[in-house]
Amino acid sequence: MGSDSDLWVMKEAAEILDSFGVTNEVKIVSAHRTVKKMIYYAKTAKTRGIQVIIAGAGGAAHLPGMVAAITPLPVIGVPIMGTSSRLHGLDSLLSIVQMPPGVPVATLAVNGARNAGIFACQILGLKNRAIAAKVERYKQNLEGDVLRRAARLDRLGIKKLLKSTTLIR
Amino acid sequence: MGSDSDLWVMKEAAEILDSFGVTNEVKIVSAHRTVKKMIYYAKTAKTRGIQVIIAGAGGAAHLPGMVAAITPLPVIGVPIMGTSSRLHGLDSLLSIVQMPPGVPVATLAVNGARNAGIFACQILGLKNRAIAAKVERYKQNLEGDVLRRAARLDRLGIKKLLKSTTLIR
Amino acid sequence: MGSDSDLWVMKEAAEILDSFGVTNEVKIVSAHRTVKKMIYYAKTAKTRGIQVIIAGAGGAAHLPGMVAAITPLPVIGVPIMGTSSRLHGLDSLLSIVQMPPGVPVATLAVNGARNAGIFACQILGLKNRAIAAKVERYKQNLEGDVLRRAARLDRLGIKKLLKSTTLIR
Amino acid sequence: MGSDSDLWVMKEAAEILDSFGVTNEVKIVSAHRTVKKMIYYAKTAKTRGIQVIIAGAGGAAHLPGMVAAITPLPVIGVPIMGTSSRLHGLDSLLSIVQMPPGVPVATLAVNGARNAGIFACQILGLKNRAIAAKVERYKQNLEGDVLRRAARLDRLGIKKLLKSTTLIR
Amino acid sequence: MGSDSDLWVMKEAAEILDSFGVTNEVKIVSAHRTVKKMIYYAKTAKTRGIQVIIAGAGGAAHLPGMVAAITPLPVIGVPIMGTSSRLHGLDSLLSIVQMPPGVPVATLAVNGARNAGIFACQILGLKNRAIAAKVERYKQNLEGDVLRRAARLDRLGIKKLLKSTTLIR
Amino acid sequence: MGSDSDLWVMKEAAEILDSFGVTNEVKIVSAHRTVKKMIYYAKTAKTRGIQVIIAGAGGAAHLPGMVAAITPLPVIGVPIMGTSSRLHGLDSLLSIVQMPPGVPVATLAVNGARNAGIFACQILGLKNRAIAAKVERYKQNLEGDVLRRAARLDRLGIKKLLKSTTLIR
Amino acid sequence: MGSDSDLWVMKEAAEILDSFGVTNEVKIVSAHRTVKKMIYYAKTAKTRGIQVIIAGAGGAAHLPGMVAAITPLPVIGVPIMGTSSRLHGLDSLLSIVQMPPGVPVATLAVNGARNAGIFACQILGLKNRAIAAKVERYKQNLEGDVLRRAARLDRLGIKKLLKSTTLIR
Amino acid sequence: MGSDSDLWVMKEAAEILDSFGVTNEVKIVSAHRTVKKMIYYAKTAKTRGIQVIIAGAGGAAHLPGMVAAITPLPVIGVPIMGTSSRLHGLDSLLSIVQMPPGVPVATLAVNGARNAGIFACQILGLKNRAIAAKVERYKQNLEGDVLRRAARLDRLGIKKLLKSTTLIR
Repeated sequence: MGSDSDLWVMKEAAEILDSFGVTNEVKIVSAHRTVKKMIYYAKTAKTRGIQVIIAGAGGAAHLPGMVAAITPLPVIGVPIMGTSSRLHGLDSLLSIVQMPPGVPVATLAVNGARNAGIFACQILGLKNRAIAAKVERYKQNLEGDVLRRAARLDRLGIKKLLKSTTLIR
Repeated sequence: MGSDSDLWVMKEAAEILDSFGVTNEVKIVSAHRTVKKMIYYAKTAKTRGIQVIIAGAGGAAHLPGMVAAITPLPVIGVPIMGTSSRLHGLDSLLSIVQMPPGVPVATLAVNGARNAGIFACQILGLKNRAIAAKVERYKQNLEGDVLRRAARLDRLGIKKLLKSTTLIR
Repeated sequence: MGSDSDLWVMKEAAEILDSFGVTNEVKIVSAHRTVKKMIYYAKTAKTRGIQVIIAGAGGAAHLPGMVAAITPLPVIGVPIMGTSSRLHGLDSLLSIVQMPPGVPVATLAVNGARNAGIFACQILGLKNRAIAAKVERYKQNLEGDVLRRAARLDRLGIKKLLKSTTLIR
Repeated sequence: MGSDSDLWVMKEAAEILDSFGVTNEVKIVSAHRTVKKMIYYAKTAKTRGIQVIIAGAGGAAHLPGMVAAITPLPVIGVPIMGTSSRLHGLDSLLSIVQMPPGVPVATLAVNGARNAGIFACQILGLKNRAIAAKVERYKQNLEGDVLRRAARLDRLGIKKLLKSTTLIR
Repeated sequence: MGSDSDLWVMKEAAEILDSFGVTNEVKIVSAHRTVKKMIYYAKTAKTRGIQVIIAGAGGAAHLPGMVAAITPLPVIGVPIMGTSSRLHGLDSLLSIVQMPPGVPVATLAVNGARNAGIFACQILGLKNRAIAAKVERYKQNLEGDVLRRAARLDRLGIKKLLKSTTLIR
Repeated sequence: MGSDSDLWVMKEAAEILDSFGVTNEVKIVSAHRTVKKMIYYAKTAKTRGIQVIIAGAGGAAHLPGMVAAITPLPVIGVPIMGTSSRLHGLDSLLSIVQMPPGVPVATLAVNGARNAGIFACQILGLKNRAIAAKVERYKQNLEGDVLRRAARLDRLGIKKLLKSTTLIR
Repeated sequence: MGSDSDLWVMKEAAEILDSFGVTNEVKIVSAHRTVKKMIYYAKTAKTRGIQVIIAGAGGAAHLPGMVAAITPLPVIGVPIMGTSSRLHGLDSLLSIVQMPPGVPVATLAVNGARNAGIFACQILGLKNRAIAAKVERYKQNLEGDVLRRAARLDRLGIKKLLKSTTLIR
Repeated sequence: MGSDSDLWVMKEAAEILDSFGVTNEVKIVSAHRTVKKMIYYAKTAKTRGIQVIIAGAGGAAHLPGMVAAITPLPVIGVPIMGTSSRLHGLDSLLSIVQMPPGVPVATLAVNGARNAGIFACQILGLKNRAIAAKVERYKQNLEGDVLRRAARLDRLGIKKLLKSTTLIR
């Protein structure tokens, strides 16, 4: 990510990777303020053994696209809407997703860092059965969680449920 | 893709995959009109040996997200702006990219099918060195092509170049 | 609805139906996280005697469209703008309303669950005079309520009215 | 509809209704230019035996909402993007869908008149088994049509199919 | 205005008119909930001696356009963005401004009720020199106010000024 | 207007004024390219006897607002979407309508010059009964025209009408 | 700037200029409320020795464009999104950036006053080596700052860093 | 610029510079496809004697921002809306203008290359009186041109002028 101000969003990607047992590193690399480090990072990522790069950025978000321009690895982009972004994420979404032919960035929802982690695991799961199995289990848990909440609604009814406080999204 | 009217966009993904020597199938599967086939396709994709799914759709574009909800495989989404889409692709872009936590769709630019093909190859290149090598060569060719065009501009100047007709994008 | 986090919006539909004496059930069914349940729900709805389905969802909102793809019943969609939606409801509105030919979802305003309930009653009122009569009375009450408020403004004037606190919308 | 310039869009609703054997009338009634007729039409619709009203309008599209304000019948709105609409349908979509609590208009996609016809039939199908059966058959035909096109793609491959000219949407 | 919830915005129009000595009435008239009253109001406005109508509304804002459809008087529209409007005023702005040929509504900024009052005075000033003179004085005061604030900035400098609290807009 | 390229739109305002017998002048005055003339025009307009100013402009459309800043006369703004405007009129609409408190510009639809003419006549009609009478007659004609077209549709039916070619908007 | 309510944004430009040792003046000049002062300011700026003008404004933001229309000096525009702007800065951005051919305003991000100051220094650095050297040092400091924060993240890890409170953007 | 497909827009910048007698070079340098060349170009620009860089790009337009990240020179950005850009320039505008603090790109209108050339001359005019004089003369010609066209309209009237074909913008 380009700044530690993005950490509160991007940490969700790291949490997913940690929980799936995928080795990962979290780095601050700015396309606009630390160009040399960004280039070096993108250039050496593959030889250092990195397999997938998740890049999050806000505003005129160039980090994902520039990293994708340099590395042959798959790059996943996360548009970030921080407190100082005035156009509520449309600027970062369009800056990341509208890449020209030849240089794809796989883009997720605004502030969708958790999904970036899951998608990375889906990619890695193609080579690694253990990760693939965890992805499947994660999805089943997701289903189980919604089913449990659905059952709770069936049991309690609307009014009682709304009085209780733990609501997912 | 959901309709053969999307074929003129989505064929670029197939062309890339063919040119990289990646076995692929091109199927019409509609989330809204052929639900059963869509579910069956998504459910059996992994056991049939498919590794990556590219799904393109326009308007209220649900195909990529629904396929991603069913399969554990990585799903790449291509928002399509056909002639009958009245909001120039913003509807399909937002319908595909704004997926909820737990069910990522890796989204590319509006009509960005070529990049979907390249991104799929980047994923597959993690397991298959031959494909990875082709991705790198493709990027070098891209660079070479732009450099050649840059050289042509240097050589001809603006006016002569504009009279010639073969312009890339 | 796809998640109990949508309940604070969708409960308004249930309240209307209850107040009109229309039997209804409130269920959590996620298009993306509980696909099987969603399909089962949509497939069996008609034979279970359900006549109208109201589906609310946020972000890349696929629930209304997918339910409409499966059931022959009329489906009413409510775009939801929850706290985690970054594009203030435009994403869910477009994801629901821009359905392709053949699979309509009757869409209401962002967070317009109350109107979804009323519209369902208008539909049911075609068969059931008691419900139709209640719809007419509801509209008259609405008018009466505005007229009373108008009279209050006439009586009090702007300043006094603004000091009082009960303002409708 | 408010003007015969909308007829090229709205005729699709009439065609669906005709093909489903639903008696219907096509009328030009402008909320802004023929207020009296609009009010009279909306006020007498129910007693004339009309059961569902489909209203299409463009720009600052007030026809559907005003009709819904007057009649207790369900009103379906079709945002129209004509050639003179400068904001490609976003104006008419928002003018129709964002109705206040108490006065719903069930809104379909921009220029989605065909779906308006189908949705009306879904409503009428609740009372009339013949229409309900036709809706189900229509959906099956839709599926069959896509399956046939899918089979054609399987048979011909991309290149041959693209040379043929009959593409749906 | 359509609801007393709009009063906190619309009162600024009344305040301007009061301060310019222009007789005015503030009424709650809803296009959607009190259709009859709206029609009656618009129809009788001219014969009652009203010369200009200012209509404010939010969401799918039909009040200004419908009043303009009925009365031959000039109608000024104020798009309102209340707390329940989810698309931050773009819906009401487009619903009011995009009127079809023949039925103009003179539209002001979102929540621009004060300017509606001033514009009404500019219109009335064409007939009434006293009002015209007040408009000119108002504008001079506006200028004087900004010049005073500019002088204050010149005198205090940025830091001291920012510590003081009375900032205009 | 700021440029003769806007004439094809703005001429509709002149045509209305001519047809209502309102003396008018059509001038090219650019806020950005002929500042002095613009200031002079706005400053002297009132003393020259002008009563209402209609200003049309595209892109970053400053002409209406600047004229309104200088003259005490009512100013009507027409956002223009010419062929070189890349954001289909949203830029000019927002540049004109979102004026700050104290300096109103009464804004009409994108390219809504005809309505600007009508609105000017509604203003002038407050002082001049002949103009007011023409406005009322214009509206009646509008109604008559729509009623005639409605009757034609009733008479011919959809298919025959669509074969005929004279459609209004 | 047009109002002291913009000072909390625009002061960042002054702070940058002060810290780079560039003489500057901060003035309140409104395009809409103090037209004469605005014209005088723009007209005399060059002869008074001013070299670059930074103009910030919100809503229908005409100040930068009008100043650019009058002065031959380079004008830098800052779209401001104040608390009373209802369309979150899109209105001011488009009002400033979409200037017609011949009258450029160099536009920065919404509320991007700091960058306006830096850009002014980059311009002045072309003539003044001391300023140019400071721009280069500023950029190096920027890089150093990000690198330090990156090192801090490497040292502390995500959790510890998030507990600490000083995050940049 | 990033591609010779942008040449038809960007040539207008070169034409202005040529006509003002400013030495310039027109280069194709892609941020995404020729990263090394882009870095080299940006890094060496200042030592090669370049004083201002104009960078034009479309879609997820990173070229201006990346060049600005590397060079201390002022960078002017031109958002380009080519035929393959599906969101009519909003994507490139936001990608260029919304740069983070510390790395300004002075952004002009979508496809505003001519203004980029003029703005560059305004910058250079600070050091070079001859160029400054030409900028002033250019603006006077602009004014003269509009005045001539205004006079032509005064002379011919609307109808005759519209029959003639040479309209500016």
